[in-house]
Amino acid sequence: MGFEDASQVCTGILSSSDTGKKTTALSLNSIINLDHGDPTMFEPYWRNLGEKCKLVISGSDVMSYFSDPGNICWFLEPKLANAIRVLHRLVGNAVAEDRHILVGTGSTQLFQAALFALSTPDAPEPISVVSTAPYYSSFKEEVEFLRSGLYKWQGDAKTFHKEGPYIEVVTSPSNPDGTIRRAVVNREGGKLIHDLAYYWPQYTPITGAADHDVILFTFSKCTGHAGSRIGWAIVKDEQVARRMTKFMELSSIGVSKESQLRAAKILEVLNAGLQNGSGSENFFEYGRHIMAKRWFELRYIVKSNSKIFGLPEYPVEFCNFSKGTTIAHPAFAWLESKQDEDIEKLLRAHKMLCRTGTRFGSEQKYVRISMLSRDEVFDEFLERLAAIKGGTENQ
Amino acid sequence: MGFEDASQVCTGILSSSDTGKKTTALSLNSIINLDHGDPTMFEPYWRNLGEKCKLVISGSDVMSYFSDPGNICWFLEPKLANAIRVLHRLVGNAVAEDRHILVGTGSTQLFQAALFALSTPDAPEPISVVSTAPYYSSFKEEVEFLRSGLYKWQGDAKTFHKEGPYIEVVTSPSNPDGTIRRAVVNREGGKLIHDLAYYWPQYTPITGAADHDVILFTFSKCTGHAGSRIGWAIVKDEQVARRMTKFMELSSIGVSKESQLRAAKILEVLNAGLQNGSGSENFFEYGRHIMAKRWFELRYIVKSNSKIFGLPEYPVEFCNFSKGTTIAHPAFAWLESKQDEDIEKLLRAHKMLCRTGTRFGSEQKYVRISMLSRDEVFDEFLERLAAIKGGTENQ
Repeated sequence: MGFEDASQVCTGILSSSDTGKKTTALSLNSIINLDHGDPTMFEPYWRNLGEKCKLVISGSDVMSYFSDPGNICWFLEPKLANAIRVLHRLVGNAVAEDRHILVGTGSTQLFQAALFALSTPDAPEPISVVSTAPYYSSFKEEVEFLRSGLYKWQGDAKTFHKEGPYIEVVTSPSNPDGTIRRAVVNREGGKLIHDLAYYWPQYTPITGAADHDVILFTFSKCTGHAGSRIGWAIVKDEQVARRMTKFMELSSIGVSKESQLRAAKILEVLNAGLQNGSGSENFFEYGRHIMAKRWFELRYIVKSNSKIFGLPEYPVEFCNFSKGTTIAHPAFAWLESKQDEDIEKLLRAHKMLCRTGTRFGSEQKYVRISMLSRDEVFDEFLERLAAIKGGTENQ
Repeated sequence: MGFEDASQVCTGILSSSDTGKKTTALSLNSIINLDHGDPTMFEPYWRNLGEKCKLVISGSDVMSYFSDPGNICWFLEPKLANAIRVLHRLVGNAVAEDRHILVGTGSTQLFQAALFALSTPDAPEPISVVSTAPYYSSFKEEVEFLRSGLYKWQGDAKTFHKEGPYIEVVTSPSNPDGTIRRAVVNREGGKLIHDLAYYWPQYTPITGAADHDVILFTFSKCTGHAGSRIGWAIVKDEQVARRMTKFMELSSIGVSKESQLRAAKILEVLNAGLQNGSGSENFFEYGRHIMAKRWFELRYIVKSNSKIFGLPEYPVEFCNFSKGTTIAHPAFAWLESKQDEDIEKLLRAHKMLCRTGTRFGSEQKYVRISMLSRDEVFDEFLERLAAIKGGTENQ
C-alpha cells in the first residue's frame, strides 16, 4: 500500500481550518490509516508556541532561483544551513562542521541524488544498491521506477555476494524496525549512504556524532513538518556534493525557498529552546515523553495479548543528549503475529491500515505501524488492537 | 553553461536584506549573467503591492504530507488548484475546467513526470523523445541524465523519422526563440507534452485557450516567483494524471505546502487585480509594458548594429486578453551573429554570459539572452552590446 491510498488517510478526521485545530469524529466504521509515517503527533507542540514560530513572507521575497550563488549548493538558503549546523552541534547526533550541507525536496530527493552521485556514468553495468532487510519499503521502488542504467536494486545486503562496486544504504535507527544498524557488506568498492532520518532524541538514545561520507536527514521526522518537503544531506567529498547538487538542478532546479525559510525559522526556535530552556521548551524531551507514553501503552496491550502479538525489544543505553540512560521509542512499531498470520490482513479486517512486512523485504507475519498519528487516532488504534481477541480472557 | 556557474550570477549586485530592496554596484569589470531566465524583473511590482501579498504561516500549519486526500493529486493544496483555474479562465490561455490539475516542484519535475507517465514500462525499447530545434536546452539533459530505460532523447522533431511510439515536446512560445509552435511529427503512436511556460500576455498575444492532453505551466514565468519552485500540469486523461502523481510521490513525496500556499496567495491577488482593476492592478499589462520597452530598446541597438546582429521578427496578432493587436515580447532574445561568429564567445569577451545556440540544438551563431533580469543589469547589458562595435560608425 502506498500513498495512492491517500483517500483513506483522513477518514473520520474533520479539520477546522479556521482555528488550525483538528477535531475528530472517529466512528466505529472509520478506517484508521497508520500506513504512512505522517508525523501529525507534533502539531500541538508547535501550535502552543504561537507567535514565536510564525513566518511572514512578502510578495517580492525569494523570487530568484538563487540563494547562495557562491556555494556549491547554490539554492540553499544560508539561514537554513546555519540552523542545521547549530542543531547538530546541540543534539550531538552528527558532525556537520566543515562538511557540505545540501538541501533537498525531502530526503527522498536527496537519496536519489546520492544514487546518481555515487554511480559512474560510463560503468559497464549499473551499480548494485542494497540495504539490510527489513529495509525502508520505498527504496526498491525509488531505485527501480525509472529503470536507470546507472544503478540497480539488489535487495537485502545480508545476502548480497556479487563482485564489484555497490552502494549500501544504512538506515539507522531502522525504518521499519527501530534497530541500530551498521554497514554489513564491507567490501572494496563499496559506497555508503547513511539514512539517519530517525536518529533524533525523541526516537532513540544519541550515542555519538555520526561522521560518514553521505548522511541524510529530514525535517519531517526531526520536527514533524512533513508538508514542507525539506531534507538535508551532510557530505564529506566535494565532488559528491557537486554531483548531488547537479541532480537537484536537473530534477527540480533547486528546492522551495519558502519551505527553506520555514524550516530555518522552526529550527531556530527549536535551537533556542535547547540552548535556553528545559521541559516544554526542549522539543526533543517533549517528543521523547510522548513517544515513551505511546510505547508504554502499546507494549501493555501487546503483552496482554502475547499469544497473538509480539514487539522488538531495544537495549537501554546512555543518551549523550539527555545525559541519562534511555531506551528507543521508534517512530514505527514492527508488530509481529505470533501465529504466523498475515497480520496486515488481520488488522485491515479490524479497520486498521498498516504496511505489510513483505513490502520491507520481510514476511507477512510482520506489519509496520505508524506511532506518529494524532492522539485520537492513536487511542482508537490501541482500543481496536486490544479488542482483537476480546480482551485478555484467553491468556 | 548551466546553473553550475551560479557563482557568477550576482556579481556586482548587492542585496540589502533588511529592506528587501536591491541596490546595485555594477562596475565596469562586473560580469553580467544573462544565461538563466531568472525573472527578477518582476520584483518591484510585487514589492509595491505590500501587505496584500503577505503570507503568514504558523508553526503548526501544513505539517501533514496530505493536502487533499480525496484528490488524485493528494498533495495539491485546494486553494492553489482553485486559483489556477480562475487564472486560466481570466486570461483565456488554457482550458482548466474539468481537467486534472497537478502541482510539481517547478514544471521541471512535471516534465519528467509526464515522460514517466507517457512511457510504457514493459515496452521493448525506450520511447523516443523529440522537440523542434531550437529546443529548450535542458530537455536533452533531463531526459538523459539517469539513463532511463523508459525514454530516450532523439533530438530535433523536424528530422525524426523513426517508426513506433514517440513523445513530442511542444514549447510554445518557444524557449529560446519566442516563436509559436505546433506539433510537427504528427504520426500514429505520438504523444504530446505542451510546455506553455511562456504563454502569458506579457510575453505573447493570447490567441486562444489551449486544450491539449498534457499542458505544463510554471509559476516562475507567470508571475516571476522562480524561487518557489511551483509548476502545474493540466491533464485530460485520468490514468496519465495518476502516473504523473505517482512520479512525484516517488521522487519527492509531493510538493512544498509553503510554496503552494504562497503561489495561491499571489495568484489570488493577481486574479483580483484582473477582475477589479486595470493599469497597475493588471499584472500582465504591467509586464507587457516593461517587456515592450525592453524589446524596443534592444531592437534599436541591434538595428543600429545590423551588420553584426539580428533578431527574429514576430507577427502582429489579436490578443484576446488585451482586446487589441499586439506583438510578442519574448522572455529571451535569440540574438544572431550576421557574421557567423561564435556569438557566445564574442559576448563573453565583453563580460556578458549568455547561452550558446549549440545548447539548443542550433548553431553557435545564435545565443539566448534573458530579458527578465533586474533593470540595472538589463541597462548595463544594452550599453555593453551597443559598445561592441563602438557605436554606429560602421553602418
